[in-house]
Amino acid sequence: MSRENLNIVPFVSVDDMMRIVLAIGVEDFLKGLAEKVETDFCRWESFDKTARIASHSKDGVIELMPVSDGERYAFKYVNGHPKNMREGLQTVTAFGVLSDVGNGYPILISEMTILTALRTAATSAVVAKYLAPKNAKTMAIIGNGAQSEFQAMAFRGLLGIEKLKLFDIDRTASEKCRTNLGRFGFDIEVCSSGEDAVEGADIITTVTADKQYATILTDNMVGPGVHINAVGGDCPGKTELHADILMRSDIFVEFPPQTRIEGEIQQLPNDHPVTELWQVMTGAAEGRRNESQITLFDSVGFATEDFSALSYLHDVLPDAPFYQELDMLADPDEPRDLFGMLLRKEAASS
Amino acid sequence: MSRENLNIVPFVSVDDMMRIVLAIGVEDFLKGLAEKVETDFCRWESFDKTARIASHSKDGVIELMPVSDGERYAFKYVNGHPKNMREGLQTVTAFGVLSDVGNGYPILISEMTILTALRTAATSAVVAKYLAPKNAKTMAIIGNGAQSEFQAMAFRGLLGIEKLKLFDIDRTASEKCRTNLGRFGFDIEVCSSGEDAVEGADIITTVTADKQYATILTDNMVGPGVHINAVGGDCPGKTELHADILMRSDIFVEFPPQTRIEGEIQQLPNDHPVTELWQVMTGAAEGRRNESQITLFDSVGFATEDFSALSYLHDVLPDAPFYQELDMLADPDEPRDLFGMLLRKEAASS
Repeated sequence: MSRENLNIVPFVSVDDMMRIVLAIGVEDFLKGLAEKVETDFCRWESFDKTARIASHSKDGVIELMPVSDGERYAFKYVNGHPKNMREGLQTVTAFGVLSDVGNGYPILISEMTILTALRTAATSAVVAKYLAPKNAKTMAIIGNGAQSEFQAMAFRGLLGIEKLKLFDIDRTASEKCRTNLGRFGFDIEVCSSGEDAVEGADIITTVTADKQYATILTDNMVGPGVHINAVGGDCPGKTELHADILMRSDIFVEFPPQTRIEGEIQQLPNDHPVTELWQVMTGAAEGRRNESQITLFDSVGFATEDFSALSYLHDVLPDAPFYQELDMLADPDEPRDLFGMLLRKEAASS
Repeated sequence: MSRENLNIVPFVSVDDMMRIVLAIGVEDFLKGLAEKVETDFCRWESFDKTARIASHSKDGVIELMPVSDGERYAFKYVNGHPKNMREGLQTVTAFGVLSDVGNGYPILISEMTILTALRTAATSAVVAKYLAPKNAKTMAIIGNGAQSEFQAMAFRGLLGIEKLKLFDIDRTASEKCRTNLGRFGFDIEVCSSGEDAVEGADIITTVTADKQYATILTDNMVGPGVHINAVGGDCPGKTELHADILMRSDIFVEFPPQTRIEGEIQQLPNDHPVTELWQVMTGAAEGRRNESQITLFDSVGFATEDFSALSYLHDVLPDAPFYQELDMLADPDEPRDLFGMLLRKEAASS
C-alpha cells in the first residue's frame, strides 16, 4: 500500500473472508495459516504479550486482546455472551485490527469469527504435528458444532487424518458435520457414544460448547499413546475432561498464566507441571517421548495466534483481493488544518 | 437496528463524519456533544473506568482505551507517533467502537480523528461554563494548529465568546486559523507574542503541539480572574505552563490518576490538591468562587469523553444517515454451522 492512501484501511467482511478462504481453498488456507502460527510460536520471545483487558457484565464479557512483535501490532475484540444462543445470536463475535508499529497506522481490519475458527483449528493441527502418535490416521471428534469441520480439515491438511469418528449429544450436529465434510473424502463414522467414538482413535479432539464443568471424557475412555486435543474448555468454569485424565497426561499449553485460569488445568493445583508449546517447537523442550505416553494440548487460544491469523490474512490479500477500502483515518493535506478540511468538504458539496 | 441485521455494523468514515458534522452544523454538533459530555460527567460513578492499555515502541505508542457504563461499551484505538509529522503523516490517528453490553455486539465503528477534535473542544467548553469568569467575551488561543478552530467554535457555542486573540510561533498557523474562522463572525486579532495574546483575555486556551516541556505561559502573563484551558500538555514529558502558574491556580482535572501522569500537574508533587470536574458538575465541589481566582482546566482527554462522543454520534445517525454498512459479524442461520455457511457461499458463487 503506497503512502498516498495510508488513510485507507482494507476491511475484510464476513463475505470477503469466505471468498478469500474459498479462493485459496480451505485446506490450503489452513496449511498456510498453520505455517504462520508455527513460525510465530518459534519466535515466542519476540512478542510483547500484554494481558487481555476484560470488561465483565451481568450477561457476559467483552475483551480486547492486544499483542505486538515490535513490527506489527494486533488486537482482537471478542465478546462472550452465553445467553445469546437462546436469542438466535452468536455467543461469540469477533473482529480484529493489524497495525504498523512504526507509524501506528492500522493496515487491516477484519471480521474474526471465521478467522478465529480457522486459526484455532490450524493451531491444534500444528501442535498435533509435535505431539500426536506417528502415522495417526483416525481422529475422534466429540462435539460436532461450529469448530468441528475446521478441526477435521486442518488435521487432514497437516497430519493426513483420513478417518473421523464423530459424536455429539445432539445427533443432528454429527449429521451436519458428516454432510459438510462429505465431499472431502474422509471416512466418517457417526457414533452413538463418546466411548464408541474414541475406540481406536489416535487423536481425540474434544470441542463441545457447554459453558460448565462437564466430563466429556472419563478416565477409562483414554488408552495409552493417544493425543488429546482439548479445545472446548476455554474459560473459567468451563472444562471437558475428568481431572484423572489430566493426571495421566503430559500437558502442553500456549501461555501458562492464561491456561491456568481458562484451560482444563484450572482443575489442578497451580504448580502442576506443564510444558510450553513454543519450547517444544523450538526444540528446547521435549514433545512426545514414546508410544504409550498420553499427550494433551489444553487449548484456550492465545493472542499471538490472532496476530498470526491477521498477519497471514494481510499476506494473502494481494492474491485474493477481496476487501473494501475504508476511509478510516483523517488525512488532511496539512496535518494542522483539520478544520479547513471540513470547510473545504462543505465548499465541495455546495 | 432490527434483530435481522445485527451482523451489520454502521461505519462512519472520515468523509461521512464531515458530512454528519456539516449536516448538523459545526456549532450545533459541538453543543449537542457538549450536552452529552456534561450528562456523562454528572453520572461519573456509573462508569467502569478501566485503565488504558498502552503498547510502547521505539517510535511511539498504540493505546486502547475502553470504558463501559453497564449498558454501552466503547473503546478508542489511538496512536501517538511524533516522527510521523516529518513524514507527512498524522501524529495521532484514532478510531473507535461502541457496543451493546447486553449481547456484546458492536453497534458502531467510527473514525475518531475528527470526532476526538470535536469532543476535546466540547469538553473544554463544558468545563469553562463552570469555571470561566462571568460574561467572558475574549479568548486567547496560543497554538493555532488542528485543535484551535474547534476550541473557538465550542466556546462560541457554549459561552458566547466573540473575540479571539491568536498567537502561534508560526504566523501562518494563526493566519490559517483566522481564515478558517472568518465566516463565523468572530472578531479576530492575530498577535505577535503570547504576551499580546493574553492581554485582556478572560479565557486563555493553550493548545500547542510540541512534545516537550515547554513554557507557553509564564507567571507574569497570567492576571487574576482568568480561566486557563490547558489542552496541549497531554502526555508524560509534554507540558505548556510554568509551574509557578500552577501554584497560583485552582486546578480542575478529569481523572486524577491519569492527569497526574499526563497533565500539567506532572510538574507538581503527587499530593498537590486538585478538584475533580464531575464533582463540580454535580455540585459536590465548588467551581469558580470569586472574580480574582485563577482557574485551570488541566485537560488530557479521558475515555468517558470518547464514550460520550461515540454515544452522541450513534444518537444523531438516524437524522444524519451518512455511514456504510459493514458486514462485520458472522451470522450463520444456524450458529453451529459456520463451515456450512462457507460451503453454501461456494455453491452460490459457482
